[in-house]
Amino acid sequence: MHTIFFKNKPRIISTGTIAGPKECAGIVGQYVDKALPDDTFGESTYEKAECKMLTYAISKAMENAACKEEDIDMLISGDLLNQIISASFAARDFNIPFLGVYSACSTMSESMAVAASLIDGGYFQKIVAATGSHFSSAERQYRYPLELGNTRPPQSQWTVTGAGATLIANQGSDIAITCATFGKVVDFGITDVNNMGAAMCPAVASSLLQHFRDTGRKPEYYDLIVTGDLGALGSRLLKDLTWEKGVDIQPNHVDCGEIIYNVVEDEFQGGSGAGCSAVVFNSYILDKIKKRELNKVLFAATGALLSTVSSGQGESIPCISHVVAIENV
Amino acid sequence: MHTIFFKNKPRIISTGTIAGPKECAGIVGQYVDKALPDDTFGESTYEKAECKMLTYAISKAMENAACKEEDIDMLISGDLLNQIISASFAARDFNIPFLGVYSACSTMSESMAVAASLIDGGYFQKIVAATGSHFSSAERQYRYPLELGNTRPPQSQWTVTGAGATLIANQGSDIAITCATFGKVVDFGITDVNNMGAAMCPAVASSLLQHFRDTGRKPEYYDLIVTGDLGALGSRLLKDLTWEKGVDIQPNHVDCGEIIYNVVEDEFQGGSGAGCSAVVFNSYILDKIKKRELNKVLFAATGALLSTVSSGQGESIPCISHVVAIENV
Repeated sequence: MHTIFFKNKPRIISTGTIAGPKECAGIVGQYVDKALPDDTFGESTYEKAECKMLTYAISKAMENAACKEEDIDMLISGDLLNQIISASFAARDFNIPFLGVYSACSTMSESMAVAASLIDGGYFQKIVAATGSHFSSAERQYRYPLELGNTRPPQSQWTVTGAGATLIANQGSDIAITCATFGKVVDFGITDVNNMGAAMCPAVASSLLQHFRDTGRKPEYYDLIVTGDLGALGSRLLKDLTWEKGVDIQPNHVDCGEIIYNVVEDEFQGGSGAGCSAVVFNSYILDKIKKRELNKVLFAATGALLSTVSSGQGESIPCISHVVAIENV
Repeated sequence: MHTIFFKNKPRIISTGTIAGPKECAGIVGQYVDKALPDDTFGESTYEKAECKMLTYAISKAMENAACKEEDIDMLISGDLLNQIISASFAARDFNIPFLGVYSACSTMSESMAVAASLIDGGYFQKIVAATGSHFSSAERQYRYPLELGNTRPPQSQWTVTGAGATLIANQGSDIAITCATFGKVVDFGITDVNNMGAAMCPAVASSLLQHFRDTGRKPEYYDLIVTGDLGALGSRLLKDLTWEKGVDIQPNHVDCGEIIYNVVEDEFQGGSGAGCSAVVFNSYILDKIKKRELNKVLFAATGALLSTVSSGQGESIPCISHVVAIENV
């Protein structure tokens, strides 16, 4: 049993979201708190812009719930940059205890699951879970300097420029986190660092199947099963992998990476990055939950746990996915 | 109130430790489960050696408690390498849900605090918290390639080659984690990346003072107050900083970085790295707790949340320290 049931059902009382111009041209544009006209956000480096977006999302989630800094018991955050500097430097601006986490692009659901556990256990009342990413900082850290003008292969995804924060509390709304399934690290031996969708889908399949086994629920229990950032190819593979095990998620599955961009040639398989599911879930999806267009949502952000060093040393890509169930109660 | 009191008092039921030849020449040599004669541990790269040490420590902690993989509900781990690859790749070898954390050299106490929370809340029965570091992988990632033969400045510390794992359970020993204080990110504006002790001590002071305020305890409540890896200079500064606030930790304070090595010229201020406090606490200190030579220990591992990119962009060094109280009950 890897699934926690939260007896006190911690609530999502607000969110804060921000995204770049390319992202806001798509589906999330009308739902985010702030649509950036310029992805530098007035900063001199992309890393500083990423940190500023994360800081904005955290502040906005607090503001949207009319909370002050001193009302918040903890900030749980991480990001894709080496030593999670966006999260750590954002945390420096708040006088709030900080729990640094790393789960690559599965950070949003990992931090929500940990936050819900700490609130459900009665230890704290209000926790902000947050993450973000930036296309340009991720490209130069994980791949090539943008100035090099490298050609992107067709199986690649586009790292989302954006950040999202979720304010979770012991009461204050009808939107509850009812359970969480913690994922295992799964490695199917994929070594192509441009094919994250294929690398990540076995980990997501593992976590989703575990969730359905542990809870006795079937996919149709949920109005929507939202995966993090598998992209178009990864989503297709996930549906195959789960279908092979007798679980058909096809009718109600959607992937944040697949839906975030208007389909144009450059993004190929869609969006990725910790900010992808953070922005899509906390703006577009949560809006539908609030309006009760969706009442039961399973959210599985997905992370690839590689580094340039591990790939350089010939390693394949271990992946993970943490799952949280969000329901109107 | 940033301190959690654990009503069910989660127990430390076993540990697993391993350290390199330089470390084992010092105080931990006779207490670790495995003393490596060679810091490559038979691997072709230092990163792989670091991962193998961490895997060893986790396995050994389970073996020392006569637990199998299927008995363990979760692994909580992180390390200093980019994208915490040691922890993620170690987790790949175990069929156990994995929670990746990042708190630099404060990872040991952060992961212990989270593990204790999840067990105390009744969600899980057995969790392994683990971390490690390697001198040679840290040097080439954070500083210079070893082959360059750079001169080390006198305020520098020596990253510990070693790993430690703590198996925490809901019952099974007299050694309990009674409470935890989650730290805030504190930045005093230090920019010298060779002077970690000075950078980290304000964060430790902040967390310790918060702990004493929240609990109403005085330093003398504890037989020992163990900080992570401040080194000799940082420890002196910490004693000054807390003394200025009317809290005298001098009589019962010790720093893992200060005591791990026999004092020779090369290490200057002593040991550092996530493995430093992980090895010292889980071998030397825990042995004294088991023998009841120490009955109440406050453990505050300390982390510097910088990256080479943040330093390169002119940033100072934000730091953090998470605190756990370990008591014989």
